[in-house]
Amino acid sequence: MLIIFGSAKLLAEICERLGQPGIVGEILAGALIGPSVLGWITPNDTLKSLSDLGVMFLLFGVGLEVKASELLKVGAKATLVATLGVIVPFFAGWGIMSAWGVPQVEAIFVGASMVATSVGITASVLSAKGLLHEVASQIILAAAVIDDVLGLIVLAAVSSVARGHVNFWEIALTAGLAIAFTVVMGLWGTKAANHLMPHFDSRLKADDAKFHIALVFLFGMGLLAQYTGVAAIVGAFLAGLALSDTADARVRTLTRGVSELLVPFFLVGIGLHLNLAAFRSRSTLILGLLILTAAIVTKLIGCGLGALGLGMVPRGEVGMVVAQIGLSLAVISSEVYSVVVFMAVATTLVTPLLLKIAFRTPALEPVGA
Amino acid sequence: MLIIFGSAKLLAEICERLGQPGIVGEILAGALIGPSVLGWITPNDTLKSLSDLGVMFLLFGVGLEVKASELLKVGAKATLVATLGVIVPFFAGWGIMSAWGVPQVEAIFVGASMVATSVGITASVLSAKGLLHEVASQIILAAAVIDDVLGLIVLAAVSSVARGHVNFWEIALTAGLAIAFTVVMGLWGTKAANHLMPHFDSRLKADDAKFHIALVFLFGMGLLAQYTGVAAIVGAFLAGLALSDTADARVRTLTRGVSELLVPFFLVGIGLHLNLAAFRSRSTLILGLLILTAAIVTKLIGCGLGALGLGMVPRGEVGMVVAQIGLSLAVISSEVYSVVVFMAVATTLVTPLLLKIAFRTPALEPVGA
Repeated sequence: MLIIFGSAKLLAEICERLGQPGIVGEILAGALIGPSVLGWITPNDTLKSLSDLGVMFLLFGVGLEVKASELLKVGAKATLVATLGVIVPFFAGWGIMSAWGVPQVEAIFVGASMVATSVGITASVLSAKGLLHEVASQIILAAAVIDDVLGLIVLAAVSSVARGHVNFWEIALTAGLAIAFTVVMGLWGTKAANHLMPHFDSRLKADDAKFHIALVFLFGMGLLAQYTGVAAIVGAFLAGLALSDTADARVRTLTRGVSELLVPFFLVGIGLHLNLAAFRSRSTLILGLLILTAAIVTKLIGCGLGALGLGMVPRGEVGMVVAQIGLSLAVISSEVYSVVVFMAVATTLVTPLLLKIAFRTPALEPVGA
Repeated sequence: MLIIFGSAKLLAEICERLGQPGIVGEILAGALIGPSVLGWITPNDTLKSLSDLGVMFLLFGVGLEVKASELLKVGAKATLVATLGVIVPFFAGWGIMSAWGVPQVEAIFVGASMVATSVGITASVLSAKGLLHEVASQIILAAAVIDDVLGLIVLAAVSSVARGHVNFWEIALTAGLAIAFTVVMGLWGTKAANHLMPHFDSRLKADDAKFHIALVFLFGMGLLAQYTGVAAIVGAFLAGLALSDTADARVRTLTRGVSELLVPFFLVGIGLHLNLAAFRSRSTLILGLLILTAAIVTKLIGCGLGALGLGMVPRGEVGMVVAQIGLSLAVISSEVYSVVVFMAVATTLVTPLLLKIAFRTPALEPVGA
């Protein structure tokens, strides 16, 4: 615990002093203390749980700061951004891997791993800089939620292909459930919470009952999201969004306390997964850089230049999960697995650096796709 | 997560409405969803980690609310209370088990498991009722820290006996280290923190840097406590104590957020360990009730009647750890293990109920031993 938290905060402080975002330091801390360099810490179940909780609270906190009505205003644009931001990377990944000569299924899986944006990193940068209410930020958040749903559908389809028989009914069901859950919560979550919270709150006797209700709601939404097939973090974000009107300053500060403790475990956890040993082979290194470049460029092409596209670049844990499923289905090699994880970690690492530059330039306006 | 947190808060709310302390409900929730009754949740590594973190933050938060100087004022009295509160239960447990006819080593182990107070429960009741600054509360806290150190020495001695060769040098070393750590931190921790905190704080650039320093300090102290042999929670309490002058309202609220999330996992975790199946045997049930009665009465005799003695009654996770060590050394039977765990859980469960009565009666003054 001490090593993870301490090294994360130490490197974060060093990065801040160098004028770089602190979260870059925390991810680097993970890479440093992980198996790749010092080997002090290896990923385990407990770390995984703390990291999962961390990213849930991160997204919950971001949701609390955003209003559903504002996100809905940018809904049409966000849907376009998300859709193009899914299509372009998917085909780029597929194309590159096909050209590289791997089997079709493996190429498709790499494409799928490049689809979904991991919104945690971007959200954390935007939130730290107080930029969550910029139009570009709103579009990024809405698009990231939508592209997570799309990514899920792509993953369902691709897994179906990998298992050898495409089950259209199952894919349609997954898609329907995921879309229904997100739409219902996005549209009516806030209204329901505004209606119900005062009832509960006035009837409960415990101290900080509001925070307890918020936590139960958060865990419930996380669970529900997983049942409907969406990532738990999307559920957490929607939970925060629903409570953004009713949560008072105390609930926000208490949530912040949990985030401050747990988010470093999420960031360090990303860095921990980096396996630099695989890149001793020159061809793996070239492939890794190629896929990384494609991962960045395709989101810029699909989602727009400037802050908007950049905000969609990080793949983080979402890309890793797809790669792990591919590995467990035995359709991707351990070499390609390392490449995908490298892409996921590196996109996450460069985003805060690039975002910082993008938001410093005068042209803050999102450039549409 | 949802089941654990939700059921804890639900039963806590029910208990509050029945006019009982909420934490009784949270422990009962653990017993209810655990293997004994519904069997929804079984203890696992992740729960254990969350529970350990929970009790660390609980004690850290209590430490923050207390001043070292106030504790030192009651030091002499607390030392007497702690010493008698260790000796009386130890010999009572040993005596009862000997009379019951179990081997001497097993009897000694049961005695050792009845020694150390688990201060978390009492601290949480006192803190919830705003009674931490009562003289009785101060003595309880100081005595609980001292009796943890004494309990550690007893455990070292007893383990030595169980292994068949008593190593006096090792016992003395354990005792010396534990006492030195506690005394040094208790005496000079606050002074050191008051001196160092402003330096660090003014030099760090990150948001909420104070909270980060506090967490690093907390984890460091927890680790150091374990190295010197004291329980991590004693380290956490001493860390809180050291920071009680320098921590501002924001640090306290952020800490509170973490506690609100994690403490239920600690309380539910205690309830989870209850194994009621063992008590189908009538003789085990009688032994269990006998040991439970002895565990309560001996602390009242050793530490004083009223709130003071009652506050020292809960054995919680400390008693369980001793029983687990006994089990792993194969010196106690699974039947006796169940009895000790029952004693540990039941003392924890009755304390909030009894404390509530004790603090309601006019005679609030501690009755010395």
